[in-house]
Amino acid sequence: MTKGIEAVETKYFTMAHEFRLESGRMIAPVTLAYETYGLLNDKKDNAVLVMHAFTGDAHAAGSHKGDKGKGWWDFMIGPGRALDTDRYFVICINVLGGCKGSTGPASVNPKTGKPYGLDFPVVTLGDMVNAQVKLIDHLGIDKVYAVLGGSMGGMLALQWAALHPERVKCVIPIAATLKHSPQQIAFNEVGRQAIMADPAWNGGDYYGKAIPEHGLAVARMLGHITYMSNESMEKKFSRRVKGDTGGFQFSPDFEVEGYLQYRGQNFVKRFDANSYLYITKAMDFFDLSGEKLFEKGDLGQTKFLVIAFKSDWLYPSSQSQNMVRQLKMHHVDATYCEINASYGHDSFLIETEGSRQVHLIKHFLANWK
Amino acid sequence: MTKGIEAVETKYFTMAHEFRLESGRMIAPVTLAYETYGLLNDKKDNAVLVMHAFTGDAHAAGSHKGDKGKGWWDFMIGPGRALDTDRYFVICINVLGGCKGSTGPASVNPKTGKPYGLDFPVVTLGDMVNAQVKLIDHLGIDKVYAVLGGSMGGMLALQWAALHPERVKCVIPIAATLKHSPQQIAFNEVGRQAIMADPAWNGGDYYGKAIPEHGLAVARMLGHITYMSNESMEKKFSRRVKGDTGGFQFSPDFEVEGYLQYRGQNFVKRFDANSYLYITKAMDFFDLSGEKLFEKGDLGQTKFLVIAFKSDWLYPSSQSQNMVRQLKMHHVDATYCEINASYGHDSFLIETEGSRQVHLIKHFLANWK
Repeated sequence: MTKGIEAVETKYFTMAHEFRLESGRMIAPVTLAYETYGLLNDKKDNAVLVMHAFTGDAHAAGSHKGDKGKGWWDFMIGPGRALDTDRYFVICINVLGGCKGSTGPASVNPKTGKPYGLDFPVVTLGDMVNAQVKLIDHLGIDKVYAVLGGSMGGMLALQWAALHPERVKCVIPIAATLKHSPQQIAFNEVGRQAIMADPAWNGGDYYGKAIPEHGLAVARMLGHITYMSNESMEKKFSRRVKGDTGGFQFSPDFEVEGYLQYRGQNFVKRFDANSYLYITKAMDFFDLSGEKLFEKGDLGQTKFLVIAFKSDWLYPSSQSQNMVRQLKMHHVDATYCEINASYGHDSFLIETEGSRQVHLIKHFLANWK
Repeated sequence: MTKGIEAVETKYFTMAHEFRLESGRMIAPVTLAYETYGLLNDKKDNAVLVMHAFTGDAHAAGSHKGDKGKGWWDFMIGPGRALDTDRYFVICINVLGGCKGSTGPASVNPKTGKPYGLDFPVVTLGDMVNAQVKLIDHLGIDKVYAVLGGSMGGMLALQWAALHPERVKCVIPIAATLKHSPQQIAFNEVGRQAIMADPAWNGGDYYGKAIPEHGLAVARMLGHITYMSNESMEKKFSRRVKGDTGGFQFSPDFEVEGYLQYRGQNFVKRFDANSYLYITKAMDFFDLSGEKLFEKGDLGQTKFLVIAFKSDWLYPSSQSQNMVRQLKMHHVDATYCEINASYGHDSFLIETEGSRQVHLIKHFLANWK
């Protein structure tokens, strides 16, 4: 692997004006946290927009000062990598409604001087995209070369194409869907109910007090199950038992239990429960099925690479296949690739053997320009 | 369909002596709630033991006085039905550790005069079976003609064969497994964590106070998702939205959300949270893989019918196939049948088109005797 991105820092963009949401509600101020890697060329036509997944953030590559950890898609971004920073100007923006530097329910409501909580307006994936457009405008970019991402990131890439077809050349939805199935909605709803069942959630008003950590941890534990495959769980844990419990108690007896609890407890330190509610709801409402993807433009100038993973049962490959069918029916240039990775939905976040995802994306972008 | 069982009532059997658990702990008194349908013949060789699933009970068929509802497997049990009460003496027993009349964590601990709560000993599927043996002895039955059930009921049927091979002729595990995969353990663990995260759970000491209804409801909602298939959810709910919510709020917007909440809220009225913990733990510890199914006998005189459902992703058919492979490797007479029903794991509880499950079981039992 080539040398990656070095030190990076998160930047902040605050909109000059009120921002209109799809619901008609106005919100101000709106700040977006973002990072960039590589340089914008003179023609300003080499921008690649990386969209993060539900609980992701703007820190896609490199390391923050004093932090040894790398961004969540570091293996994908850097000189000579798939998103080659010697060629592309890569941008990653934390979504509106999130809690990683962009305006969201934990931000201060200027009308009250206190965090919004549930007074934060409901936001959609369309709102998240339209907010990003303000930043793209601010950067002086008319048309982005590519927009891509996995899971919700893939849905956001589709939403970009749907709302601003004239401003995107390549779209790469990975492990995504044109709309959530009732099962996907149901899993999200159980997570939301777990949060709202926690008395500390307190109707969303918990900032500066005890946070709904138990409910949020349960939601995350469930999420983790759905992100993994049966096979990857089998490989990682099988039925191995932890330590010396003897098997006759309720503490975590199986390794898989301890792992999920650990992941749940870690998650509550880094993610806001209200953002969990708002963003999952936005995903559930997202629907570009039927003609909706093509309402603002026929996408005749846009090229799609649709990637799915065989072991992903949360966003099954049938959803990606259906997406490709819709695109083909509308004579859109679309390539479909199903990768035989075993990590389930999380496969897009993992540099798998042979780096098939990396190669696919690298060559798709390089060949088309 | 033939006329079913008429009025039935639940009976109770209390063991005369202390009962020894697999852990070595003794427990007394032990009461089992059970129902019977049909008559035990003179030879006492026509008993069919129906094992209920995790949250089931002894009320498998017919109606209780003043109650219009039918038992949970009514379509299977009655004159002329698969479990033909003109031929068989059908018995269904609520499991030890349950909360439907049998001794469990909600029962009074004779040492304190108060409900056991977490002082109830950890029980295993082996303990549940051994407790049933005491009742079978009491009824004067030496060998049961058949033992069958779905989900945990199927695991209990396997446990019967493993512990008492000389006392069972036919075994029918339906939608079951020889052991839980880490994914199955993980789903159970999230349910348990949801219950224990509810402050009302109070370390298991909530009897006579507020019950942990929120946590228990969340656990049940998650369970329901895993019991259904993607396809059956699509048919039942698709993405239909409830009433006039307008789509910009957090109350249940999609029908699937309202349905899950309704099912969750109903469940807390009928099931004890501590029983949920004890029984799911017992299922997770259950393991008859490898040679363990054959340790007490070679099962050479026992005949198996193993049934799986194609759309069941919680107990995938690969687990049943693996069970059949184990049986065949040990030269046990085993028939495998995969039914193409679309209801997911719950298929065994539903009288499907063509009643394939009913016919299979009916002919398997009738042909072999």
